Amino acid sequence: MEKVTRFSISVDTELLRKYDSLLKEIGYSNRSEAIRDLIRERLIKEEWKVPGKKVVGVLALVYDHGTRELTEVLNQIQHRYVQAVIASLHVHLDAHNCLEIIVLKGTVSRVKKIAQELLTLRNVKHGQLTMTTTGVDIP
Amino acid sequence: MEKVTRFSISVDTELLRKYDSLLKEIGYSNRSEAIRDLIRERLIKEEWKVPGKKVVGVLALVYDHGTRELTEVLNQIQHRYVQAVIASLHVHLDAHNCLEIIVLKGTVSRVKKIAQELLTLRNVKHGQLTMTTTGVDIP
Amino acid sequence: MEKVTRFSISVDTELLRKYDSLLKEIGYSNRSEAIRDLIRERLIKEEWKVPGKKVVGVLALVYDHGTRELTEVLNQIQHRYVQAVIASLHVHLDAHNCLEIIVLKGTVSRVKKIAQELLTLRNVKHGQLTMTTTGVDIP
Amino acid sequence: MEKVTRFSISVDTELLRKYDSLLKEIGYSNRSEAIRDLIRERLIKEEWKVPGKKVVGVLALVYDHGTRELTEVLNQIQHRYVQAVIASLHVHLDAHNCLEIIVLKGTVSRVKKIAQELLTLRNVKHGQLTMTTTGVDIP
Repeated sequence: MEKVTRFSISVDTELLRKYDSLLKEIGYSNRSEAIRDLIRERLIKEEWKVPGKKVVGVLALVYDHGTRELTEVLNQIQHRYVQAVIASLHVHLDAHNCLEIIVLKGTVSRVKKIAQELLTLRNVKHGQLTMTTTGVDIP
Repeated sequence: MEKVTRFSISVDTELLRKYDSLLKEIGYSNRSEAIRDLIRERLIKEEWKVPGKKVVGVLALVYDHGTRELTEVLNQIQHRYVQAVIASLHVHLDAHNCLEIIVLKGTVSRVKKIAQELLTLRNVKHGQLTMTTTGVDIP
Repeated sequence: MEKVTRFSISVDTELLRKYDSLLKEIGYSNRSEAIRDLIRERLIKEEWKVPGKKVVGVLALVYDHGTRELTEVLNQIQHRYVQAVIASLHVHLDAHNCLEIIVLKGTVSRVKKIAQELLTLRNVKHGQLTMTTTGVDIP
Repeated sequence: MEKVTRFSISVDTELLRKYDSLLKEIGYSNRSEAIRDLIRERLIKEEWKVPGKKVVGVLALVYDHGTRELTEVLNQIQHRYVQAVIASLHVHLDAHNCLEIIVLKGTVSRVKKIAQELLTLRNVKHGQLTMTTTGVDIP
């Protein structure tokens, strides 16, 4: 049973109008849920500022598997950090392009280091690290 | 609302006794559920006898990623059959060993062909194809 | 054999100094690779402005699986868009928290719609859509 | 550098003939590789006889997600054994049918227990445990 606190805030009318219209566009059915999500996001951003904090990162990479040895190198780097790499999901987008999603769990500094090593590889077409959370400290 | 038919079967007492004790060991809470599962398994086995039938296969491979070019070759084969390979999940078991799980969807003959090509690769330590179903014709 | 064009650009010295120091920190070994990545990112951002363009999205969600029916609802929404949802990877972070990564492929408008429907669900602790690419038009 | 031992075996001519024709059908290009695979399979089967041995299991389940609460229950059981469940891959086969692949790592007795609990759930259309290996003791 989670306890809920109800409180009021005052927001500039025009700002609220714009925000409400955004929420409607995005599909939020109520303002509380939307603001709860903003607060959680902010807390997660904070987690990523503490180098020793345990976090979860999701790295998405798109690359051409035909590129000489890239598949091999990607696999080798992941094995070097076997404690932090939980699993990776590979989707063969077409005859050439691969999407590889790598789930990383560890301290901020470690997850960032691994992500950087993978993101800066030559011939990775696109890479993006989603900085998310173990959820432990986010109610 | 699924319709259920109730019917009786007669089974040799000793055979039933052994079966019941197996069910207890496995953890089935009732005989009907266990026999339903046996019937479904039998129907799925039948699906795999029709070369043109659409099925789902799950291929599990364990290999040492250090093996020269094996990662590369595995990836290339999967891309050659991009229509049938839905996704693959890769778990880095330790600094050397990989588990790769490949989900295949297509006709029996195609899924078998791809599986065989991957299973017979040199230096795959263990490989096993689970022949399962799209679920469409299995109530 | 990909053809490479070499060209010069002029950049404000101080701006370049800062950029180089960033690249060193991130781990890029050369400036060309880093700028190639910037250009690709820019092109991918452009793809996401065209509603009918085929793209790939990776949605990461963290939630407490104990939340009444959330698992169920997440699964139902994904099934409603079965053409666009390629696969999802689920990592059980601890006894309560789940990470679910959903791979979406389809037009920009469709991928965004699905993502929004999932992101705005109550009790999703964190959600983030990575807007990436099929790779087809990104060399 | 792995050391290789070459040795001779004698096999009944007719048995060998049949085996060779099977190998050809399956796609093995040479007999040594095929027999190495047989030996490895046998060793892995042995691993699964020792209750305390660390192994890897891949559980494939097909079910109708519309079934009341099955998705929920599957998720809850996996969380109860969070130490052993590495990740799970979910493929939405059609509007109704799901394929869920669960990677389990732990002692034989634990992996078997979890698998049995999941396999005997009502309304799982098909389930199959692939008993594989961490690869550690399989050269």
